[in-house]
Amino acid sequence: METLSVFLDVPLAKATDIPLDVYRLDPSPQKVCLGNAGCQTDDAEIIWIPPVVQRILLQIPQDPTLDHEYLPELGMVEFTKAAMELVIGKNSRALLENRAGGVHTIGGTGAVWIGAEFLRRWYKPRDLTSATVYIEISQLGSLGSIFKYAGFTDIRTYHYWDPIKLAVDTEGFLKELQDAPEGSVVFIHAPEETGLAPEQWGKVAAAMKERRLFPFFDIAAQGLASGNLDRDAWALRHFVDEGFELLCAQSFSKIFGLYDERVGNLIVVTKNNEMLIRIHSQIAKQITMTWLGPTSLGGRVIAMVLTSPALLYEWKQSLRTLVKRIMLIREKLKEKLRILGTPGSWEHLTEQSGVYSFIGLLSSQVKYLEKHKHIYLLPNGQINICSINSKNLEYVAQSIHEAVVATTLQDHSHSMEKVD
Amino acid sequence: METLSVFLDVPLAKATDIPLDVYRLDPSPQKVCLGNAGCQTDDAEIIWIPPVVQRILLQIPQDPTLDHEYLPELGMVEFTKAAMELVIGKNSRALLENRAGGVHTIGGTGAVWIGAEFLRRWYKPRDLTSATVYIEISQLGSLGSIFKYAGFTDIRTYHYWDPIKLAVDTEGFLKELQDAPEGSVVFIHAPEETGLAPEQWGKVAAAMKERRLFPFFDIAAQGLASGNLDRDAWALRHFVDEGFELLCAQSFSKIFGLYDERVGNLIVVTKNNEMLIRIHSQIAKQITMTWLGPTSLGGRVIAMVLTSPALLYEWKQSLRTLVKRIMLIREKLKEKLRILGTPGSWEHLTEQSGVYSFIGLLSSQVKYLEKHKHIYLLPNGQINICSINSKNLEYVAQSIHEAVVATTLQDHSHSMEKVD
Repeated sequence: METLSVFLDVPLAKATDIPLDVYRLDPSPQKVCLGNAGCQTDDAEIIWIPPVVQRILLQIPQDPTLDHEYLPELGMVEFTKAAMELVIGKNSRALLENRAGGVHTIGGTGAVWIGAEFLRRWYKPRDLTSATVYIEISQLGSLGSIFKYAGFTDIRTYHYWDPIKLAVDTEGFLKELQDAPEGSVVFIHAPEETGLAPEQWGKVAAAMKERRLFPFFDIAAQGLASGNLDRDAWALRHFVDEGFELLCAQSFSKIFGLYDERVGNLIVVTKNNEMLIRIHSQIAKQITMTWLGPTSLGGRVIAMVLTSPALLYEWKQSLRTLVKRIMLIREKLKEKLRILGTPGSWEHLTEQSGVYSFIGLLSSQVKYLEKHKHIYLLPNGQINICSINSKNLEYVAQSIHEAVVATTLQDHSHSMEKVD
Repeated sequence: METLSVFLDVPLAKATDIPLDVYRLDPSPQKVCLGNAGCQTDDAEIIWIPPVVQRILLQIPQDPTLDHEYLPELGMVEFTKAAMELVIGKNSRALLENRAGGVHTIGGTGAVWIGAEFLRRWYKPRDLTSATVYIEISQLGSLGSIFKYAGFTDIRTYHYWDPIKLAVDTEGFLKELQDAPEGSVVFIHAPEETGLAPEQWGKVAAAMKERRLFPFFDIAAQGLASGNLDRDAWALRHFVDEGFELLCAQSFSKIFGLYDERVGNLIVVTKNNEMLIRIHSQIAKQITMTWLGPTSLGGRVIAMVLTSPALLYEWKQSLRTLVKRIMLIREKLKEKLRILGTPGSWEHLTEQSGVYSFIGLLSSQVKYLEKHKHIYLLPNGQINICSINSKNLEYVAQSIHEAVVATTLQDHSHSMEKVD
């Protein structure tokens, strides 16, 4: 036991900057965490789960025909097929031509990671060792790190949101795409929540085609932005219709309330079926080496809901109820700030949609909230709208008001800092 | 759509050589797969699951206090703690000194992979870029590939089983360890099933200490070799007692019948608590980049069983029943072969224990079984004993007899071929 450890050189990794961790340590009864990953219910601080999902969770273990044998590497076909149809659309030409296929992964993160690893190993535009990857600036620390971890060395940022004007900046986004090295990978997280209109997505697709950029979508909460599943999938479907080859990670945590069951789907859209088979064979190999196969419970629940018209209807109703609540919170918060006379425009609160929002606070204001009001959110001012409920709305609005009044607007640039 | 695919250079990956895949395609009603990964029940071809696990699977979704929030990166503490105590022993000094800790992973494969990745990034003996890794020859194609995938370039094989003498070859094993480059990683899969006695493990540990080799255990089915959980953990506990720093992957698929819920644990034993915290911080970072956090259902079931004395007792009884069945199958098969007068000694069938066994067939005999008898097993002659049941025992014994009689013993060396 006297010998030295063989791991002496292992440094302590910097903990990720998660508001929830700081929140948990705060003893104040007033404390509020606006940086939750999941959607809470309004009446209590627990995770929202659609009633139909709860019911199926009770049914599944009672079914004697379901055993617990390993799933194949690429997972449960009923699940990947139904999930893919949900986002690409049943009548997509890519589906009819058998050149699109899903891979059942360990959560949305697993899908992004498997996709990033696949691209690093096999996507070599212009004979480069590896491509340039573009990540939206607010995602650099989280999703950008996955590409870095997979071995990409040239990772750059783009933006679609102007934190000063508090509005979508399509021109800036297009300019960045036009300046990108040919063949770059553009990672588009939560397109449904960006606020870009179909016409703007059309321009983005055209710019990407022009520069031969490779789109990697990440659909985080289909249905929770507009309340309409098809509308939230518009951008992806447009790219598929335009003949792009692409990857798309799909997450089910928020829309099924199954965060801890880690269900994701990695969709590959390519030129033809033979290419799809080859790509899937390589991805299956990656999976054999890492987690062998996905877990079944979450995929089973989701496949059951998506393939039964009655259950699907019920689930869609639940999603709509959640979306209505999200819109109501946005309206109430805007109204409170208006009544308080908080400086600045808060129209963006209702112009945006979805669970996550750039609330439009500077990092100095975020720090003020943390220091003086026990309210915790991401340094870039992004909040989870579902973290606001009838009990804390008043306090959150009053605190935002105080933070805005108390802090100066001197350092706009801070709100664009890297979240690392 | 006329442009070429950006993935034109992606080759079709060679499918893994899984007997089950070939078996599934065989239309013969006589067909038998002896290469199943999981343990089947005797009366039907379904997966064995302990009754207590079935019961808890029904209870869990009825508990309103359990929600589906994300688990932390390192997983459920109740699970990792109970799992680690099961294998290391509650009174292990490493535990009392807070220098051993578990990481909740996606299955045993996930634990091996996270461990391999961690070692490749941080374990640099003799200032090498990466260490030499030793894998037992029959595991080279499966588990060895994980180390290759993680980036290790110098992967060598060792053996503890003499396929000619059909017996443990401790001297050969020790010689290979003594010749290994200082600081090499030695991956020891299923030590409980190797057939090495405590005294022999003592010599292995001494040889490894002498060469400063790093042990990475992989406990695949604790309890299923001897029927005694503590006895099956003897080798690992001896290494811990001897003061080794080590990794240990733990799998729960076979002993809990939850193959598809992918529950594993990666145990780190190091010199002190501060080192453990540093190592865990790096592993947490790896997990954030790949699957974000583990799934909860399987870990929850296992934690409930292991922490309740009554449930634990019931589960141990179920394990013992399964072990008795395994021993009975071994005895019956040996007896049948004796009655048939099959050439060669079949004593090793009952001298070995556990689910997987080197049955002692040459690759030519394995091919004979596949070609003439519709019986499928791994090319190195390893079989899953649970795949033999009262319905197929007679046919399997008769077929083995024919294969042995029909084939010559000319190419002994084939049985040591790499399974890739």
